[in-house]
Amino acid sequence: MNIFKLCQTCSGTVLRRCIQTSSTRHVELTSVRYPDVKRGNYGSVRDSDLATFERLLPGRVLTDSLDGYNTDWLKTCRGASQVVLRPKSTEEVSAILKYCNEKKLAVVPQGGNTGLVGGSVSVFDEIVISTQLMNNIISLDEISGTLVCQAGCVLASLEDYLSNHKLTIPVDLGAKGSCHIGGNVATNAGGVRLLRYGSLHGNVLGLEAVLANGEVVDCLSTLRKDNTGYDLKQLFIGSEGTLGIITAVSLNCPQKPEAVSVAFLGISSILNIWSMRERIAEGLMHDGYCYKYDVSLPLQSFYGLVEAMRERMGTMVTRVIGYGHVGDGNLHLNLTSPEYSTEVMDKIEPFLYDWVANHKGSISAEHGLGFKKKNFIYHSKSKSAVRLMKDIKHTFDPNMILNPYKVLPDF
Amino acid sequence: MNIFKLCQTCSGTVLRRCIQTSSTRHVELTSVRYPDVKRGNYGSVRDSDLATFERLLPGRVLTDSLDGYNTDWLKTCRGASQVVLRPKSTEEVSAILKYCNEKKLAVVPQGGNTGLVGGSVSVFDEIVISTQLMNNIISLDEISGTLVCQAGCVLASLEDYLSNHKLTIPVDLGAKGSCHIGGNVATNAGGVRLLRYGSLHGNVLGLEAVLANGEVVDCLSTLRKDNTGYDLKQLFIGSEGTLGIITAVSLNCPQKPEAVSVAFLGISSILNIWSMRERIAEGLMHDGYCYKYDVSLPLQSFYGLVEAMRERMGTMVTRVIGYGHVGDGNLHLNLTSPEYSTEVMDKIEPFLYDWVANHKGSISAEHGLGFKKKNFIYHSKSKSAVRLMKDIKHTFDPNMILNPYKVLPDF
Repeated sequence: MNIFKLCQTCSGTVLRRCIQTSSTRHVELTSVRYPDVKRGNYGSVRDSDLATFERLLPGRVLTDSLDGYNTDWLKTCRGASQVVLRPKSTEEVSAILKYCNEKKLAVVPQGGNTGLVGGSVSVFDEIVISTQLMNNIISLDEISGTLVCQAGCVLASLEDYLSNHKLTIPVDLGAKGSCHIGGNVATNAGGVRLLRYGSLHGNVLGLEAVLANGEVVDCLSTLRKDNTGYDLKQLFIGSEGTLGIITAVSLNCPQKPEAVSVAFLGISSILNIWSMRERIAEGLMHDGYCYKYDVSLPLQSFYGLVEAMRERMGTMVTRVIGYGHVGDGNLHLNLTSPEYSTEVMDKIEPFLYDWVANHKGSISAEHGLGFKKKNFIYHSKSKSAVRLMKDIKHTFDPNMILNPYKVLPDF
Repeated sequence: MNIFKLCQTCSGTVLRRCIQTSSTRHVELTSVRYPDVKRGNYGSVRDSDLATFERLLPGRVLTDSLDGYNTDWLKTCRGASQVVLRPKSTEEVSAILKYCNEKKLAVVPQGGNTGLVGGSVSVFDEIVISTQLMNNIISLDEISGTLVCQAGCVLASLEDYLSNHKLTIPVDLGAKGSCHIGGNVATNAGGVRLLRYGSLHGNVLGLEAVLANGEVVDCLSTLRKDNTGYDLKQLFIGSEGTLGIITAVSLNCPQKPEAVSVAFLGISSILNIWSMRERIAEGLMHDGYCYKYDVSLPLQSFYGLVEAMRERMGTMVTRVIGYGHVGDGNLHLNLTSPEYSTEVMDKIEPFLYDWVANHKGSISAEHGLGFKKKNFIYHSKSKSAVRLMKDIKHTFDPNMILNPYKVLPDF
């Protein structure tokens, strides 16, 4: 059975084979698939820890049926978390982290778990801190278009709420039915409104985050102009939960457009439209296996990567296809072959990343680095920049308990 | 003689008494006016240092006629720098800083020196590093609207250049004829286009900065989407030269509007228009002395501060007037009295800052904290946030040579 799903980042509809309904048990454990990654020197969860968590979050400590929390949306990563904590307030997040930091227990923050780079699930047995129950809207100022809400609000719910007040939300993506705004901010989600409203770095007016030691950093301003000290909130935007856990955000929400224009193609039936729309993705899947990449490139090089890959791969692959967002330079590159092949993969990478780096592109346009791409960071960032990032990580999270094995390359 | 000048941040025309043409000699030294501020444990510039600088920057080491570099635009701060360095390249900035860091010589980066909070001049004898000669445009991509240029480009020059390519620059302010884009970015300048295009946090695509130790951090990306690691450039935006010296920036430049609408008032002559426009500022000056503040407030409290100050000050002041940018919550508050009075000042501050803090406003909407407002930071930022800022400062500039006595409160 085939199921059509919305692409998690660009709202395009893509074909996936039953992945939402299939069992997650067969997904290989990340620790098995990536044997080179070694577990850090963290504590293991004991009964006494569970008792403390239960006291802090009565009835909201899960230890059974954790498959959904342990497996990523693409079914490419599976962690072995034994406990999921579901706080309702910033104070509860603070209490959890203070405890975990003292006991050196590693944690992974999780929103809607819709990420595509393995950033939202554990690698080993990190404790999952889920924002599922932190879904309250704190305030809305209709005149200035300022929304303040908890991190666990689902993006589509926020859009519905705002719509009733003639406002809209400046970020939109395919996963909006399940992704959380805190996760969107933590991963600096891109999506289809970026060209119109700009990135979250410009649209997040403020945020509240809890540091690894439990300290609450309140930068939940609703002001458009505030030049008092360093703009700390910016560091949390896109840090993928490695510098702190975002518990609330303040967003600049533009007026809802009075009209939306839709273009119609003059073909004979609605089925034909679907057929055309799906042909690319479906065709790719029919080829067998698909190697997928999400990169940014300066416009003059936007399609060059497709041509370069065709030349390099020759008959080793069936097809090389690129499409995406010309407006913001985000290219979706797809290569197909009858089945997965290490030989093909080795021919693609790191050549592809080198090509992107040589053309001043980014190896991850929208999805972040997470677990799967962390060691490719040098293709997009300089050594001095990465060194600074590591220094910042050490400053914010000296025990390294926050989302380990993610974003930054091995220390 | 009275001179009409453009306000440095909001393009409004304000009256200033000959301040551009008057001698700067009479401006009191900052070290005298603020006797509580003690010089840090820095080295002093010796002849051997000057010889090194001359070797690094042949013919571009100034030691005479430094009044213009030592005095701020408002003529409220005067430093005692004995040397001004004028590098032309990032490599030269790097060489200077590496040397200064080793010798523990403090520096103050200076662009157009148009700041209003004493951030761009020395407090004691810090070495001025001027970006005056770093004014090259590096590249322009007309299709994607991406400009890359050195930090010392004058804002108005960039606008003229872009205008020839049917593009415009997303930031505009009264000082544009002399302020540098590097300084705009370093201070996160606001201005009159913020409501239309958003802040520099959303419009700066990349930047290059030199750290205190001379290391060059190249984040000069031109991509709109790049989610690879922490967005370090954001930290430099608004850090007022305390984390690194910005040497180049990459800007997202929107299309130049095809039409600009101008509103005309139906009055009898052009002189009347000027008269109306100038009446506020002129009236304030005629009252004697004017206490000026630049704050942000949530819209529901936008004018409340004016009323609160009127009630508090009673007959102690002649007038309390507020005007500003309703669109972005930026209020310009002015109080007048026949002459400067410590008694009046003590009645205004810290009450005013407390009021702004209690109403979730910002004590500095556009101007930054610089030297003059650094100890008021806690009125707008939490203790935990300021502690993080200090940690970041220590990480980036362990010897504290970059723009000391600015932005952060006394350590």
